[in-house]
Amino acid sequence: MPLTKAEIARLRSLQEKKHREALGLFVVEGEKVVGELLAAGFPFVELYATEAWTGRASRPDEPGFKLITPAEMARLSHYPTPSSVFAVGKIARTPLAAGALDRGLTLALDGIQDPGNVGTLLRLADWFAFDRVLLSPDSADLFSQKVINASMGSFARVTVHTAPLAEALAGVTAPVLGCDLKGEDVHTLKPLRDAVVVIGSEGRGITEAVRPHVTYYVTIPKYGGAESLNAATAAAIVCDNLRRIAK
Amino acid sequence: MPLTKAEIARLRSLQEKKHREALGLFVVEGEKVVGELLAAGFPFVELYATEAWTGRASRPDEPGFKLITPAEMARLSHYPTPSSVFAVGKIARTPLAAGALDRGLTLALDGIQDPGNVGTLLRLADWFAFDRVLLSPDSADLFSQKVINASMGSFARVTVHTAPLAEALAGVTAPVLGCDLKGEDVHTLKPLRDAVVVIGSEGRGITEAVRPHVTYYVTIPKYGGAESLNAATAAAIVCDNLRRIAK
Repeated sequence: MPLTKAEIARLRSLQEKKHREALGLFVVEGEKVVGELLAAGFPFVELYATEAWTGRASRPDEPGFKLITPAEMARLSHYPTPSSVFAVGKIARTPLAAGALDRGLTLALDGIQDPGNVGTLLRLADWFAFDRVLLSPDSADLFSQKVINASMGSFARVTVHTAPLAEALAGVTAPVLGCDLKGEDVHTLKPLRDAVVVIGSEGRGITEAVRPHVTYYVTIPKYGGAESLNAATAAAIVCDNLRRIAK
Repeated sequence: MPLTKAEIARLRSLQEKKHREALGLFVVEGEKVVGELLAAGFPFVELYATEAWTGRASRPDEPGFKLITPAEMARLSHYPTPSSVFAVGKIARTPLAAGALDRGLTLALDGIQDPGNVGTLLRLADWFAFDRVLLSPDSADLFSQKVINASMGSFARVTVHTAPLAEALAGVTAPVLGCDLKGEDVHTLKPLRDAVVVIGSEGRGITEAVRPHVTYYVTIPKYGGAESLNAATAAAIVCDNLRRIAK
Protein backbone atom coordinates (compact mmCIF):
# COMPACT_ATOMS: atom_id res chain seq x y z
CA MET A 1 0.00 0.00 0.00
CA PRO A 2 1.49 3.34 -0.93
CA LEU A 3 2.20 5.87 1.79
CA THR A 4 -0.57 8.41 2.27
CA LYS A 5 0.00 12.13 2.03
CA ALA A 6 -0.56 12.41 5.76
CA GLU A 7 2.07 9.74 6.51
CA ILE A 8 4.59 11.47 4.31
CA ALA A 9 3.86 14.83 5.92
CA ARG A 10 4.26 13.30 9.40
CA LEU A 11 7.59 11.68 8.54
CA ARG A 12 8.95 14.76 6.78
CA SER A 13 8.01 16.94 9.74
CA LEU A 14 10.50 15.04 11.94
CA GLN A 15 13.40 17.04 10.59
CA GLU A 16 12.26 19.86 12.85
CA LYS A 17 12.85 19.68 16.58
CA LYS A 18 9.39 21.00 17.54
CA HIS A 19 7.69 18.22 15.57
CA ARG A 20 10.06 15.62 16.98
CA GLU A 21 9.14 16.78 20.47
CA ALA A 22 5.42 16.86 19.68
CA LEU A 23 5.42 13.34 18.23
CA GLY A 24 8.09 11.88 20.52
CA LEU A 25 9.88 10.50 17.48
CA PHE A 26 13.11 11.16 15.58
CA VAL A 27 14.45 10.00 12.26
CA VAL A 28 17.75 8.88 10.78
CA GLU A 29 18.37 8.28 7.09
CA GLY A 30 21.13 6.47 5.27
CA GLU A 31 22.53 2.95 5.11
CA LYS A 32 25.57 3.80 7.20
CA VAL A 33 23.91 5.40 10.21
CA VAL A 34 20.90 3.08 10.23
CA GLY A 35 23.27 0.13 9.95
CA GLU A 36 25.38 1.39 12.87
CA LEU A 37 22.36 1.86 15.11
CA LEU A 38 20.86 -1.52 14.17
CA ALA A 39 24.26 -3.12 14.86
CA ALA A 40 24.21 -1.44 18.28
CA GLY A 41 20.76 -2.91 18.92
CA PHE A 42 18.73 0.26 18.64
CA PRO A 43 15.01 -0.60 18.52
CA PHE A 44 13.53 1.46 15.69
CA VAL A 45 9.75 1.60 15.61
CA GLU A 46 9.35 2.23 11.87
CA LEU A 47 11.75 1.39 9.07
CA TYR A 48 11.12 2.42 5.47
CA ALA A 49 13.41 0.97 2.84
CA THR A 50 13.59 0.65 -0.92
CA GLU A 51 14.64 -2.58 -2.64
CA ALA A 52 18.16 -1.18 -2.91
CA TRP A 53 18.57 -1.45 0.86
CA THR A 54 20.68 -4.41 1.80
CA GLY A 55 20.54 -4.02 5.56
CA ARG A 56 17.56 -6.07 6.66
CA ALA A 57 15.58 -6.15 3.41
CA SER A 58 15.45 -9.91 3.73
CA ARG A 59 13.14 -9.59 6.73
CA PRO A 60 10.20 -7.61 5.38
CA ASP A 61 7.80 -9.20 7.90
CA GLU A 62 9.44 -7.48 10.83
CA PRO A 63 7.08 -5.15 12.74
CA GLY A 64 7.39 -1.59 11.53
CA PHE A 65 9.17 -2.54 8.31
CA LYS A 66 7.73 -1.18 5.09
CA LEU A 67 9.12 -1.60 1.60
CA ILE A 68 8.59 1.60 -0.39
CA THR A 69 9.40 2.79 -3.88
CA PRO A 70 12.31 5.14 -4.68
CA ALA A 71 9.68 7.76 -5.62
CA GLU A 72 8.12 7.47 -2.15
CA MET A 73 11.57 7.67 -0.54
CA ALA A 74 12.28 10.84 -2.50
CA ARG A 75 9.13 12.35 -1.00
CA LEU A 76 9.99 11.26 2.56
CA SER A 77 13.64 12.16 2.53
CA HIS A 78 15.11 15.25 4.15
CA TYR A 79 18.01 15.11 1.70
CA PRO A 80 18.35 16.17 -1.93
CA THR A 81 19.83 12.73 -2.68
CA PRO A 82 17.69 10.20 -0.80
CA SER A 83 19.26 7.01 0.51
CA SER A 84 17.64 3.60 0.57
CA VAL A 85 16.53 3.61 4.20
CA PHE A 86 14.65 5.92 6.56
CA ALA A 87 14.27 4.81 10.16
CA VAL A 88 12.11 6.22 12.95
CA GLY A 89 12.91 5.84 16.62
CA LYS A 90 11.18 6.81 19.83
CA ILE A 91 12.60 9.72 21.77
CA ALA A 92 13.40 8.23 25.15
CA ARG A 93 14.85 10.40 27.88
CA THR A 94 16.61 8.85 30.81
CA PRO A 95 15.90 10.77 34.01
CA LEU A 96 18.94 11.63 36.07
CA ALA A 97 18.64 9.79 39.39
CA ALA A 98 19.66 11.61 42.56
CA GLY A 99 23.31 10.93 43.34
CA ALA A 100 23.98 9.42 39.90
CA LEU A 101 26.79 11.86 39.15
CA ASP A 102 28.62 10.92 42.34
CA ARG A 103 29.70 7.61 40.83
CA GLY A 104 31.72 6.88 37.74
CA LEU A 105 32.72 9.21 34.93
CA THR A 106 30.41 11.84 33.47
CA LEU A 107 31.09 14.03 30.44
CA ALA A 108 29.03 17.22 30.83
CA LEU A 109 28.48 19.39 27.75
CA ASP A 110 27.82 23.02 28.59
CA GLY A 111 26.20 24.71 25.59
CA ILE A 112 27.94 22.80 22.80
CA GLN A 113 25.86 23.98 19.87
CA ASP A 114 27.64 22.42 16.93
CA PRO A 115 25.86 19.10 16.27
CA GLY A 116 29.01 17.56 14.77
CA ASN A 117 30.88 18.32 17.99
CA VAL A 118 28.11 16.84 20.15
CA GLY A 119 28.14 13.65 18.08
CA THR A 120 31.94 13.46 18.24
CA LEU A 121 31.76 13.91 22.03
CA LEU A 122 29.25 11.05 22.36
CA ARG A 123 31.68 8.91 20.39
CA LEU A 124 34.50 9.91 22.74
CA ALA A 125 32.40 9.13 25.81
CA ASP A 126 31.69 5.73 24.28
CA TRP A 127 35.36 5.02 23.41
CA PHE A 128 36.52 5.95 26.91
CA ALA A 129 33.58 4.12 28.55
CA PHE A 130 32.25 7.11 30.39
CA ASP A 131 29.19 6.14 32.40
CA ARG A 132 27.07 8.94 31.04
CA VAL A 133 26.87 12.19 29.13
CA LEU A 134 25.07 15.17 30.64
CA LEU A 135 23.82 17.53 27.97
CA SER A 136 22.75 21.09 28.75
CA PRO A 137 19.42 22.02 27.13
CA ASP A 138 21.12 24.76 25.07
CA SER A 139 23.43 22.23 23.42
CA ALA A 140 22.57 20.76 19.99
CA ASP A 141 19.52 18.51 20.06
CA LEU A 142 20.52 14.92 20.77
CA PHE A 143 17.86 13.66 18.39
CA SER A 144 18.95 15.68 15.37
CA GLN A 145 20.27 13.64 12.49
CA LYS A 146 23.56 15.54 12.46
CA VAL A 147 24.32 14.62 16.08
CA ILE A 148 23.38 10.99 15.52
CA ASN A 149 25.42 10.78 12.29
CA ALA A 150 28.52 12.24 13.92
CA SER A 151 28.19 9.84 16.86
CA MET A 152 28.83 6.88 14.50
CA GLY A 153 26.54 4.54 16.43
CA SER A 154 27.60 5.74 19.88
CA PHE A 155 24.19 7.40 20.16
CA ALA A 156 22.79 3.92 20.79
CA ARG A 157 25.41 2.95 23.38
CA VAL A 158 25.92 6.00 25.56
CA THR A 159 23.51 7.02 28.32
CA VAL A 160 22.65 10.67 27.81
CA HIS A 161 20.73 12.86 30.24
CA THR A 162 19.53 16.30 29.23
CA ALA A 163 19.39 18.66 32.20
CA PRO A 164 20.41 22.19 33.20
CA LEU A 165 23.99 21.67 34.35
CA ALA A 166 23.99 24.05 37.31
CA GLU A 167 21.03 22.23 38.88
CA ALA A 168 22.36 18.79 38.07
CA LEU A 169 25.80 19.57 39.50
CA ALA A 170 24.54 21.10 42.76
CA GLY A 171 25.55 18.87 45.64
CA VAL A 172 27.54 16.39 43.56
CA THR A 173 30.24 14.80 45.71
CA ALA A 174 32.51 13.68 42.84
CA PRO A 175 35.09 16.26 41.76
CA VAL A 176 33.85 18.45 38.92
CA LEU A 177 36.68 19.26 36.48
CA GLY A 178 36.19 22.26 34.24
CA CYS A 179 38.20 22.31 31.01
CA ASP A 180 39.50 25.81 30.57
CA LEU A 181 42.42 27.81 29.20
CA LYS A 182 43.68 28.29 32.74
CA GLY A 183 43.87 25.56 35.31
CA GLU A 184 45.96 22.63 36.51
CA ASP A 185 48.07 20.93 33.87
CA VAL A 186 46.09 17.92 32.63
CA HIS A 187 49.32 15.94 32.69
CA THR A 188 49.49 16.23 36.46
CA LEU A 189 45.97 14.91 37.12
CA LYS A 190 45.67 12.56 40.06
CA PRO A 191 43.82 9.27 39.55
CA LEU A 192 40.06 9.73 39.81
CA ARG A 193 37.54 6.93 39.81
CA ASP A 194 34.61 9.30 39.98
CA ALA A 195 34.59 12.62 38.15
CA VAL A 196 32.48 14.98 36.11
CA VAL A 197 34.33 16.60 33.19
CA VAL A 198 32.70 19.82 32.01
CA ILE A 199 33.34 20.95 28.42
CA GLY A 200 32.24 24.49 27.59
CA SER A 201 31.45 25.91 24.20
CA GLU A 202 34.36 27.31 22.20
CA GLY A 203 32.89 30.75 22.01
CA ARG A 204 32.09 31.43 25.63
CA GLY A 205 33.67 28.59 27.63
CA ILE A 206 32.02 27.27 30.77
CA THR A 207 28.94 29.32 31.65
CA GLU A 208 28.75 31.56 34.71
CA ALA A 209 25.95 29.49 36.27
CA VAL A 210 28.07 26.34 36.11
CA ARG A 211 31.33 27.83 37.41
CA PRO A 212 30.40 27.75 41.12
CA HIS A 213 30.01 23.96 40.82
CA VAL A 214 33.47 23.38 39.34
CA THR A 215 35.88 21.85 41.87
CA TYR A 216 38.97 22.76 39.85
CA TYR A 217 39.96 23.64 36.33
CA VAL A 218 42.26 21.65 34.09
CA THR A 219 44.10 22.92 31.07
CA ILE A 220 46.01 21.37 28.19
CA PRO A 221 49.58 22.66 27.88
CA LYS A 222 49.97 24.81 24.81
CA TYR A 223 53.18 25.05 22.81
CA GLY A 224 52.25 27.14 19.77
CA GLY A 225 50.03 29.88 18.48
CA ALA A 226 46.40 28.69 18.46
CA GLU A 227 44.22 30.53 20.96
CA SER A 228 42.16 27.50 21.82
CA LEU A 229 41.36 23.96 20.78
CA ASN A 230 38.14 22.66 19.29
CA ALA A 231 35.84 21.46 22.12
CA ALA A 232 35.90 17.83 21.02
CA THR A 233 39.68 17.67 20.60
CA ALA A 234 40.18 19.26 24.03
CA ALA A 235 37.77 16.76 25.57
CA ALA A 236 39.61 13.91 23.85
CA ILE A 237 42.88 14.91 25.47
CA VAL A 238 41.31 15.25 28.93
CA CYS A 239 39.52 11.90 28.63
CA ASP A 240 42.73 10.17 27.52
CA ASN A 241 44.65 11.65 30.45
CA LEU A 242 41.94 10.65 32.93
CA ARG A 243 41.88 7.08 31.65
CA ARG A 244 45.65 6.88 31.44
CA ILE A 245 46.15 7.56 35.12
CA ALA A 246 43.29 5.30 36.17
CA LYS A 247 45.16 2.28 34.73
CA MET B 1 32.95 53.33 -7.98
CA PRO B 2 30.56 50.40 -7.96
CA LEU B 3 31.87 46.94 -8.68
CA THR B 4 31.52 45.85 -12.28
CA LYS B 5 29.68 42.71 -13.31
CA ALA B 6 33.00 41.19 -14.32
CA GLU B 7 34.54 41.92 -10.91
CA ILE B 8 31.58 40.36 -9.12
CA ALA B 9 31.71 37.29 -11.37
CA ARG B 10 35.44 36.89 -10.70
CA LEU B 11 35.03 37.16 -6.94
CA ARG B 12 32.03 34.85 -6.85
CA SER B 13 33.86 32.25 -8.91
CA LEU B 14 36.42 31.81 -6.09
CA GLN B 15 34.08 29.56 -4.17
CA GLU B 16 35.05 26.81 -6.63
CA LYS B 17 38.43 25.14 -6.40
CA LYS B 18 39.07 25.15 -10.16
CA HIS B 19 38.62 28.92 -10.32
CA ARG B 20 40.77 29.41 -7.23
CA GLU B 21 43.52 27.42 -8.90
CA ALA B 22 43.14 29.26 -12.21
CA LEU B 23 43.30 32.69 -10.58
CA GLY B 24 45.72 31.78 -7.79
CA LEU B 25 43.37 33.40 -5.28
CA PHE B 26 41.08 32.30 -2.46
CA VAL B 27 38.43 34.05 -0.43
CA VAL B 28 37.24 34.18 3.16
CA GLU B 29 34.11 35.94 4.34
CA GLY B 30 32.97 36.97 7.78
CA GLU B 31 34.16 39.27 10.54
CA LYS B 32 35.40 36.43 12.70
CA VAL B 33 37.60 34.59 10.24
CA VAL B 34 38.89 37.72 8.51
CA GLY B 35 39.65 39.21 11.92
CA GLU B 36 41.54 36.07 12.99
CA LEU B 37 43.65 36.05 9.85
CA LEU B 38 44.39 39.78 10.04
CA ALA B 39 45.36 39.33 13.69
CA ALA B 40 47.74 36.58 12.59
CA GLY B 41 49.27 38.97 10.06
CA PHE B 42 47.87 37.40 6.90
CA PRO B 43 48.49 39.72 3.91
CA PHE B 44 45.20 39.88 2.01
CA VAL B 45 45.43 41.39 -1.46
CA GLU B 46 41.83 42.64 -1.69
CA LEU B 47 39.43 43.46 1.10
CA TYR B 48 35.79 44.39 0.46
CA ALA B 49 33.81 45.68 3.40
CA THR B 50 30.53 47.42 4.07
CA GLU B 51 30.23 50.28 6.55
CA ALA B 52 29.07 47.78 9.16
CA TRP B 53 32.53 46.25 9.26
CA THR B 54 34.42 47.33 12.34
CA GLY B 55 37.67 45.49 11.67
CA ARG B 56 39.80 47.96 9.77
CA ALA B 57 37.10 50.24 8.38
CA SER B 58 38.99 53.16 9.81
CA ARG B 59 41.78 52.59 7.29
CA PRO B 60 40.02 52.84 3.95
CA ASP B 61 43.17 54.08 2.19
CA GLU B 62 44.94 50.79 2.63
CA PRO B 63 45.92 49.14 -0.70
CA GLY B 64 43.30 46.65 -1.84
CA PHE B 65 40.62 48.02 0.51
CA LYS B 66 37.29 48.87 -1.04
CA LEU B 67 34.18 50.08 0.74
CA ILE B 68 31.10 48.56 -0.88
CA THR B 69 27.36 48.72 -0.30
CA PRO B 70 25.39 45.93 1.41
CA ALA B 71 23.68 45.34 -1.96
CA GLU B 72 27.07 44.78 -3.61
CA MET B 73 28.12 42.50 -0.75
CA ALA B 74 24.96 40.46 -1.25
CA ARG B 75 25.98 39.96 -4.88
CA LEU B 76 29.55 38.97 -3.99
CA SER B 77 28.82 36.72 -1.10
CA HIS B 78 28.83 32.95 -1.25
CA TYR B 79 26.40 32.83 1.66
CA PRO B 80 22.65 33.40 1.91
CA THR B 81 23.29 35.83 4.77
CA PRO B 82 26.23 37.99 3.71
CA SER B 83 28.61 39.33 6.34
CA SER B 84 30.26 42.73 6.33
CA VAL B 85 33.64 41.67 4.96
CA PHE B 86 34.98 39.63 2.04
CA ALA B 87 38.75 39.18 1.80
CA VAL B 88 40.86 37.80 -1.01
CA GLY B 89 44.27 36.22 -0.50
CA LYS B 90 46.92 34.83 -2.78
CA ILE B 91 47.33 31.09 -2.93
CA ALA B 92 50.92 30.52 -1.92
CA ARG B 93 52.32 27.02 -1.81
CA THR B 94 55.45 26.27 0.15
CA PRO B 95 57.62 23.69 -1.61
CA LEU B 96 58.82 20.84 0.56
CA ALA B 97 62.59 21.04 0.74
CA ALA B 98 64.59 17.80 0.58
CA GLY B 99 65.21 16.48 4.07
CA ALA B 100 62.71 18.87 5.67
CA LEU B 101 60.71 16.03 7.24
CA ASP B 102 63.80 14.66 8.98
CA ARG B 103 63.73 17.49 11.49
CA GLY B 104 61.04 18.53 13.94
CA LEU B 105 57.43 17.42 14.11
CA THR B 106 55.23 16.91 11.06
CA LEU B 107 51.52 16.14 11.03
CA ALA B 108 50.72 14.28 7.79
CA LEU B 109 47.09 14.07 6.69
CA ASP B 110 46.38 11.09 4.48
CA GLY B 111 43.13 11.68 2.60
CA ILE B 112 41.24 13.66 5.25
CA GLN B 113 38.31 14.82 3.15
CA ASP B 114 36.16 16.57 5.70
CA PRO B 115 37.14 20.25 5.58
CA GLY B 116 36.11 20.77 9.22
CA ASN B 117 38.51 18.02 10.25
CA VAL B 118 41.36 19.47 8.17
CA GLY B 119 40.83 22.89 9.75
CA THR B 120 40.68 21.37 13.24
CA LEU B 121 43.92 19.49 12.51
CA LEU B 122 45.67 22.71 11.43
CA ARG B 123 44.56 24.22 14.73
CA LEU B 124 45.97 21.24 16.61
CA ALA B 125 49.28 21.47 14.74
CA ASP B 126 49.40 25.14 15.70
CA TRP B 127 48.54 24.53 19.38
CA PHE B 128 51.19 21.82 19.69
CA ALA B 129 53.74 23.83 17.67
CA PHE B 130 54.28 21.22 15.00
CA ASP B 131 56.81 22.45 12.48
CA ARG B 132 54.61 21.66 9.49
CA VAL B 133 51.54 19.94 8.14
CA LEU B 134 51.82 17.69 5.12
CA LEU B 135 48.53 17.43 3.26
CA SER B 136 47.85 14.71 0.71
CA PRO B 137 46.31 16.06 -2.53
CA ASP B 138 43.15 14.00 -1.96
CA SER B 139 42.49 15.76 1.36
CA ALA B 140 40.10 18.74 1.55
CA ASP B 141 41.41 21.81 -0.25
CA LEU B 142 43.47 23.96 2.10
CA PHE B 143 42.11 27.12 0.47
CA SER B 144 38.42 26.29 0.89
CA GLN B 145 36.56 28.58 3.23
CA LYS B 146 35.40 25.67 5.40
CA VAL B 147 38.97 24.57 6.11
CA ILE B 148 40.10 28.11 6.86
CA ASN B 149 37.08 28.78 9.11
CA ALA B 150 37.63 25.62 11.12
CA SER B 151 41.32 26.45 11.55
CA MET B 152 40.38 29.55 13.59
CA GLY B 153 43.33 31.57 12.35
CA SER B 154 45.83 28.71 12.45
CA PHE B 155 45.71 28.70 8.64
CA ALA B 156 47.89 31.83 8.79
CA ARG B 157 50.36 30.41 11.30
CA VAL B 158 51.01 26.82 10.26
CA THR B 159 53.32 25.86 7.38
CA VAL B 160 51.41 23.51 5.12
CA HIS B 161 52.86 21.54 2.21
CA THR B 162 50.63 19.71 -0.21
CA ALA B 163 52.32 16.63 -1.63
CA PRO B 164 51.63 12.95 -2.31
CA LEU B 165 52.52 11.36 1.03
CA ALA B 166 54.18 8.21 -0.27
CA GLU B 167 56.66 10.25 -2.33
CA ALA B 168 57.26 12.79 0.41
CA LEU B 169 57.87 10.10 3.03
CA ALA B 170 60.28 8.04 0.95
CA GLY B 171 63.73 8.19 2.50
CA VAL B 172 62.69 10.22 5.56
CA THR B 173 65.03 9.44 8.45
CA ALA B 174 62.70 10.59 11.26
CA PRO B 175 60.38 7.88 12.60
CA VAL B 176 57.01 7.85 10.83
CA LEU B 177 54.20 7.04 13.27
CA GLY B 178 50.95 5.78 11.79
CA CYS B 179 47.81 6.24 13.88
CA ASP B 180 45.81 3.07 13.61
CA LEU B 181 43.45 0.81 15.53
CA LYS B 182 46.30 -1.60 16.10
CA GLY B 183 49.76 -0.57 17.19
CA GLU B 184 51.86 0.39 20.18
CA ASP B 185 49.98 1.97 23.08
CA VAL B 186 50.33 5.74 22.68
CA HIS B 187 50.89 5.94 26.44
CA THR B 188 54.16 4.04 26.09
CA LEU B 189 55.67 6.31 23.41
CA LYS B 190 59.34 7.07 23.85
CA PRO B 191 60.46 10.72 23.63
CA LEU B 192 60.87 11.83 20.02
CA ARG B 193 62.30 15.14 18.95
CA ASP B 194 61.76 14.42 15.27
CA ALA B 195 58.70 12.54 14.03
CA VAL B 196 56.08 12.40 11.33
CA VAL B 197 52.59 11.54 12.61
CA VAL B 198 50.32 10.15 9.88
CA ILE B 199 46.56 10.48 10.34
CA GLY B 200 44.42 8.47 7.92
CA SER B 201 40.84 9.08 6.95
CA GLU B 202 38.17 7.57 9.17
CA GLY B 203 36.69 5.51 6.41
CA ARG B 204 39.74 3.76 5.05
CA GLY B 205 42.58 4.53 7.48
CA ILE B 206 46.14 4.98 6.24
CA THR B 207 46.37 4.26 2.52
CA GLU B 208 48.22 1.26 1.10
CA ALA B 209 50.77 3.44 -0.72
CA VAL B 210 51.74 5.16 2.56
CA ARG B 211 51.95 2.02 4.73
CA PRO B 212 55.44 0.92 3.56
CA HIS B 213 56.78 4.24 4.84
CA VAL B 214 55.37 3.88 8.36
CA THR B 215 58.04 3.01 10.92
CA TYR B 216 55.52 1.83 13.52
CA TYR B 217 51.87 2.19 14.38
CA VAL B 218 50.47 3.76 17.51
CA THR B 219 47.02 3.23 18.94
CA ILE B 220 44.89 4.89 21.60
CA PRO B 221 43.72 2.48 24.28
CA LYS B 222 39.99 1.88 24.04
CA TYR B 223 37.77 1.20 27.02
CA GLY B 224 34.25 1.20 25.59
CA GLY B 225 32.14 0.48 22.57
CA ALA B 226 32.98 2.96 19.81
CA GLU B 227 34.67 1.35 16.82
CA SER B 228 36.92 4.29 16.16
CA LEU B 229 37.58 7.90 17.03
CA ASN B 230 37.11 10.93 14.82
CA ALA B 231 40.39 11.66 12.97
CA ALA B 232 40.93 15.02 14.66
CA THR B 233 40.24 13.73 18.19
CA ALA B 234 42.62 10.79 17.63
CA ALA B 235 45.29 13.17 16.36
CA ALA B 236 44.76 15.40 19.40
CA ILE B 237 45.48 12.54 21.76
CA VAL B 238 48.60 11.46 19.89
CA CYS B 239 49.93 15.04 19.71
CA ASP B 240 49.34 15.54 23.44
CA ASN B 241 51.17 12.31 24.26
CA LEU B 242 54.10 13.21 22.00
CA ARG B 243 54.44 16.63 23.59
CA ARG B 244 53.93 15.26 27.09
CA ILE B 245 56.93 12.96 26.89
CA ALA B 246 59.12 15.53 25.15
CA LYS B 247 58.90 17.73 28.26
